[in-house]
Order: sequence, then C-alpha cells, then structure tokens
Amino acid sequence: MQKTFTLTTHRHTDMIDITIQLEQWIYELKVINGMMVVSSLHTTAGITVNENADPDVKTDMLMRLDEIYPWEHAEDRHMEGNTAAHLKTSTVGHAQTLIIQDGKLVLGTWQGVYFCEFDGPRKRKFHAMVIPE
Amino acid sequence: MQKTFTLTTHRHTDMIDITIQLEQWIYELKVINGMMVVSSLHTTAGITVNENADPDVKTDMLMRLDEIYPWEHAEDRHMEGNTAAHLKTSTVGHAQTLIIQDGKLVLGTWQGVYFCEFDGPRKRKFHAMVIPE
Amino acid sequence: MQKTFTLTTHRHTDMIDITIQLEQWIYELKVINGMMVVSSLHTTAGITVNENADPDVKTDMLMRLDEIYPWEHAEDRHMEGNTAAHLKTSTVGHAQTLIIQDGKLVLGTWQGVYFCEFDGPRKRKFHAMVIPE
Repeated sequence: MQKTFTLTTHRHTDMIDITIQLEQWIYELKVINGMMVVSSLHTTAGITVNENADPDVKTDMLMRLDEIYPWEHAEDRHMEGNTAAHLKTSTVGHAQTLIIQDGKLVLGTWQGVYFCEFDGPRKRKFHAMVIPE
Repeated sequence: MQKTFTLTTHRHTDMIDITIQLEQWIYELKVINGMMVVSSLHTTAGITVNENADPDVKTDMLMRLDEIYPWEHAEDRHMEGNTAAHLKTSTVGHAQTLIIQDGKLVLGTWQGVYFCEFDGPRKRKFHAMVIPE
Repeated sequence: MQKTFTLTTHRHTDMIDITIQLEQWIYELKVINGMMVVSSLHTTAGITVNENADPDVKTDMLMRLDEIYPWEHAEDRHMEGNTAAHLKTSTVGHAQTLIIQDGKLVLGTWQGVYFCEFDGPRKRKFHAMVIPE
C-alpha cells in the first residue's frame, strides 16, 4: 500500500493542499482504520498540516518564513543558493504521519495536509504509505 | 485502538505534559510493543517532545518562539490575527510519532510529550492511535 | 524489531548522516516493505531528513539555526544555558517516520537521514523501530 504522487508547482514558495488526493487514495484502498505516512522526496519541499479555510494563513506563513530564512545570506556557502529552502523543509518537516479512522484522515475542522514548495516552480513528487490497523 | 483526549489550557501559550495520560492509555490497552501517533486536532496547537525536568526550559522556549514569531506583524493579512500560532504549530509539528517498548513510551531520561498551546486559553483536543508490533 | 544505536559527536552542533546504519539494519531484519520510526533519546539532539550531497548545506543550516536561536539570550532562565539546543530539537523534530520499500528507505536522490547534535560533543543514543507492511 504505497504510492508515489506527482505535482507541478507554480511559484517559488507555495503550500498546495493535497488532502483530497490522499483521501481519494484511502477510499480506493478501502482502508477503514490505520495510519498514513506522507513524505516529500525532495530536500527543498516538505509536508505540513495547517489551516485550510482562510488562504491568507498560508500567504502569511510563507511571507514570515521568508523573513526568518531569507533567500540571500552573506555567509551561505552552498553554491546553489537555496539554503533557505533546505531550512524551511527541516522546519516544517519532510514528512507527516496521519491517522485514518472510518475511511478518512483524522483532521480537525480547519486542518488540511499541505505539500510545501520552497524552491519552485518545479515538478515534484511525494510518496505515501498506508498501514491498516 | 484510537482515542480522542480533551484538555483545557489556561494561558495564551503553554506546553502541557501529556506523557502520563498517554502511558496510562497504553497500560489500559495492554500493548507491550508498538508505535503511537499523537496528533493535535487544531491549527494553532501542536505536539512536541522536549525536556520534562526543569520547567524553565518551556518558559524559555515559549518566550523565544514569541520573539521569532511575534504576535503582531505589520504585513499579516489573516484577519484572525493568529498567524504566529499557525507558524509555531508547523514548526514544532501538529503531531509526533512515538515508539512503545515493554508497555512504555521509549523516551530518554529528560524527554516528555507536550501538547503545545499557541493561541489559548481554550478547550482543546488531541487524537492518538496505537499500532501494536 | 527495535534497536538502540549509539554514536559519539565531535562538535557543539553537527549533522551526522545515519542513513547507511539504518539501511544496514533493515537489510539484517530482511524487511521488504514497511515503515521505520527513528527517535533521538535526548532533548538537545534531533533527527531530520535533508541534503546528503553538498556538505555546505549542513554547514549553512547549522550556522543559520545558530543565528535564529542564539546560544546566549539575556532573558533565558534555564540554568544549564542550552535553551537554544532545546528549541532546535523541537524545530527539526526529535524523531522522523520513514517508509521502507524493496528493502530500502524511500528517499529522494538527495535525501539522507541525519542525527542532529545541538549541544555536543557527547555520547548520544537514538532508538529505531520497524513495522513491516
């Protein structure tokens, strides 16, 4: 019960809601209860769970992360220049573990699962696994 | 093997040790070895594992997180004004995965599991699941 | 299927690639598909997944984390003086959950698993568990 998903991002930094894709896959697998691991396959893109109602939340989050981890830094050595994206990935996490109950992800009213692009736009991949209870 | 726990927080930001509650539940389940996922059901409260000995550690952590993610920010768009709480949640994580051995959580000498309130005081919920080995 | 690993760190802050050790253990266990939880047993050392190609990435990451969480802070109360290390641990995470497929960890081309020392040098431990699919 493993699957690799692909997506194309359209901005330098973005949060893309992947909740529906994950729940669709749970439905296809006919899993009622269990857990799911969702993992980005990149070092400059992560996974997080956060607000899915007001789109201003993700705008604010990405803006503030840019302030804390500025793209340019006088002391960075990494030639690719994307150290900030690596840091953001380790901060939100490259992966998340989710719980499945009654065929759905256990999420609060305002929670959604996001693929976090920190060095786009690019073609990206994430990998998921389900372990039934 | 899933359960929703409730708690009431009493401050704007706080870290509440939930280790004993989780271990009590493992004891009731009679699970010897396995894993546990503990997930906040909110976008402004998370779960982390950190020091459970000197209470000054959590005071310092919450103070410094407030500096990094100040409550007020001139460019925030989100009308609720709690962008900082969303960021702190994605930083510490909305959930943690723990290992169970010999009927107890595998934690180092100073490690405890914390529910992190970042926009309280409120009534809150977290959900846990155990998968036996 | 649980094991405690030990390692000795040699710097105050460092990221040590533990991917090969973890894959060696998967090989010994003869597990083909499943998941693995890897957890630091300390409150001043964590686990993260990030770039394993250019060593400048980890140098940059550790340098920038030092800026965001400076070792000295006028308002810190914790007498041990290592609040910064506690914060870094909760930021990258004390543990990570990994997926196993075809006897190997599911990692992107540039991803490696790191033990993150934030208050060394010291003797350290991490604990891992595998759940076969």
